[in-house]
Amino acid sequence: MAYQALNEQTILDYIKSRPALESIFPPDAPLTAKEVGDGNLNMVYIVQNAGAPYQSAIVKQALPYLRILGESWTLTRERMRFETQALLQYNKLTPGLAPAIYDVDDEMSLIVMEHLNDHLIMRKALVARQRLPHFADHVSTFLARNLFFTSDLYLTGLAKKTLLAQYINPHLNKIQEDFVFTNPLMASPENQWNPLVDDEVQRVRTDGALKIAAAELKAGYMTHAQALIHSDLHTGSIMLNAQDTRVIDPEFAFFGPMGFDVGALLENLILNCLSHYGHTPDPDVRTEYQNYLLAMVRDIWQQFAHKFETLWVENNQGELTPPQYWHYAGGEEAFAEFRRRYLLNLLRDTAGYGGVKMLRRMMGVVGVWDISSIEDTSKRAVAERLAIRIGARWLKAHQQINTVDDLIAIVKEEMAVQETRVAVQG
Amino acid sequence: MAYQALNEQTILDYIKSRPALESIFPPDAPLTAKEVGDGNLNMVYIVQNAGAPYQSAIVKQALPYLRILGESWTLTRERMRFETQALLQYNKLTPGLAPAIYDVDDEMSLIVMEHLNDHLIMRKALVARQRLPHFADHVSTFLARNLFFTSDLYLTGLAKKTLLAQYINPHLNKIQEDFVFTNPLMASPENQWNPLVDDEVQRVRTDGALKIAAAELKAGYMTHAQALIHSDLHTGSIMLNAQDTRVIDPEFAFFGPMGFDVGALLENLILNCLSHYGHTPDPDVRTEYQNYLLAMVRDIWQQFAHKFETLWVENNQGELTPPQYWHYAGGEEAFAEFRRRYLLNLLRDTAGYGGVKMLRRMMGVVGVWDISSIEDTSKRAVAERLAIRIGARWLKAHQQINTVDDLIAIVKEEMAVQETRVAVQG
Repeated sequence: MAYQALNEQTILDYIKSRPALESIFPPDAPLTAKEVGDGNLNMVYIVQNAGAPYQSAIVKQALPYLRILGESWTLTRERMRFETQALLQYNKLTPGLAPAIYDVDDEMSLIVMEHLNDHLIMRKALVARQRLPHFADHVSTFLARNLFFTSDLYLTGLAKKTLLAQYINPHLNKIQEDFVFTNPLMASPENQWNPLVDDEVQRVRTDGALKIAAAELKAGYMTHAQALIHSDLHTGSIMLNAQDTRVIDPEFAFFGPMGFDVGALLENLILNCLSHYGHTPDPDVRTEYQNYLLAMVRDIWQQFAHKFETLWVENNQGELTPPQYWHYAGGEEAFAEFRRRYLLNLLRDTAGYGGVKMLRRMMGVVGVWDISSIEDTSKRAVAERLAIRIGARWLKAHQQINTVDDLIAIVKEEMAVQETRVAVQG
Repeated sequence: MAYQALNEQTILDYIKSRPALESIFPPDAPLTAKEVGDGNLNMVYIVQNAGAPYQSAIVKQALPYLRILGESWTLTRERMRFETQALLQYNKLTPGLAPAIYDVDDEMSLIVMEHLNDHLIMRKALVARQRLPHFADHVSTFLARNLFFTSDLYLTGLAKKTLLAQYINPHLNKIQEDFVFTNPLMASPENQWNPLVDDEVQRVRTDGALKIAAAELKAGYMTHAQALIHSDLHTGSIMLNAQDTRVIDPEFAFFGPMGFDVGALLENLILNCLSHYGHTPDPDVRTEYQNYLLAMVRDIWQQFAHKFETLWVENNQGELTPPQYWHYAGGEEAFAEFRRRYLLNLLRDTAGYGGVKMLRRMMGVVGVWDISSIEDTSKRAVAERLAIRIGARWLKAHQQINTVDDLIAIVKEEMAVQETRVAVQG
């Protein structure tokens, strides 16, 4: 149907008109709808069967009000298209690790998906020091499969470039290009930082080697079309509970460097780790959970690298290096070395992108709730100072990183300096 | 008008029907047309005013016969679109360094362009040991301007990605991906090489480090959307005379790594240099022209690097690193260091792509006329052996190259070994 904005009433008839939704809601079900979004760009409704509340769905529709703004309305509709495409792709490659999609209506700029009603945004779970026994397994599968199967390691050149053409996403790219890589590292009016760490912030903004490294990683983000990446894979884009993990909100999806996704995830775990200097006063409890998170970082990388390489060995059907390319005495070893170097470069990208994203969270316009929710500014400064120092080191050293333990060692060294600081003061 | 295939008669009325061509041919001019193409995919006509033969034009039309093949006809039409777009782009950025475009007719899959009737294909000029006093200046301008102005160093992110979307060119990409990077380096039925250099060929095909380097460069070709590149910039894609230089045939154009274009050009100059072991028996004459070509290689790179960097400093309006990013004490030096590193990486890509392309010319299905025209197989083998050895070294050492003189030193070292070989035999 032609676009019309739905509301809490009209959405009920709309739902009943969609054949794809008959398996979710029986035809005579007494439906209710409640708008729960923040309403800036999209409306988000929870639709429920009042007679059987476990029958529910999320309906997300791009708002029409921006239509008068021309390009912005296009942007809103496109944003919905990228999110929809990427979610469908995740459902194909990693079913159960993203919300199930029940229905898509491009004309209406609308998507109907699974209601994740017993899941928590991951940041909240981590600040509450929850244990997540399956997370490393789940998220490493999500990353390995979605990155591998959309890369030149698996797809033919034609298939990859055809898919890439559906994800030309310059407006959303620009948001990341400006607000991850550039603006936080220079004077820009929207930047926010804690005055107590102003010395660290100014040091970063005037560190030539650091700024060159950030610029080189930005050039990679703008040009390195390695695989379909989520491109905003922080712990606010993951909903979970102890059993289940779902990746949401892929509106920034495009073909970019794989390490940007892996780096976003690891970096957010480090920021949460540091946030416990504010949230968890008992040093034993804190240290124990911090070590749990650092072990999770190691575990995610190791499982990811293992799964990615196994997928590659078992599905080497992309056109980058066909099996026959390695068919000669010594070829098997050379192929293994090629894979080792590929994953090493991916780890180094992970370090670089993770580092620059750590900095942007402390010095740019977008913070992380894990840390920004620490009300005492001096306690908050402890986490922020460490985050800036660790981010700067990951970024500047990224080309010298050889194992995930190198990354963790940097975190532990900076944390040890902090413990010494406390001991001296105490 | 709807597509119809023209012939030597119908083309005359067609020309007269096109307003854009009135400035080329007066309305009452007695026109003649002659088909001069090889006729596999395109028809190429020279249209001339019989009364004033200097009034002439080239008409290139994609052939319709492949229409029954479905995808192949699409490919033919697309190929014409990429060529047309890129030629128009060159006319905008480097007028006078590509044929002038007089008229474009997308419906007819047809383009009308300048007739370069006092120009020679560059390979022929080099085999004839011509001096080309302006070539380094011309081609470095062509490269610097077309690469810089289509990159993130100059364009906004939106403009760059919008342009990139017009050059998604997977069918033509695949030809280069397979026949430059992969097939020549493995057993593949279409490969051709001189049995006299079979030892070198087999050594290359089983050299693990070399094959990894080639695979990494292929990954770069498939993913590194740095700028609009010609992507087939050998000395058969350049027409020239002592005064004038024109780049033709950009049907492979897409957004790829800049070093692929620079490398193609320098590599073809080296191959021509080596071909004179066959074409120029007098050692003094030969050495003198070989040194002339090696000096040209140095000159092209140095002029290119200088022009590229000057364009960057004077037009830093892309979004990669806005001027403000470098506004701090020491920022000017950091920006200079960023540019130095950018150009160093470009040189290393040039070495790697140049090396792999040198190998494909000796071991794959597509040779170069400069060398393949040497009839005596043992004389030809001298050039071929050197080309394989130099190509392998450029490729394997590309990440250690620091200046263009490092590349030339490799050429001279291998040539010195050849001189010794001759001396021992003589």
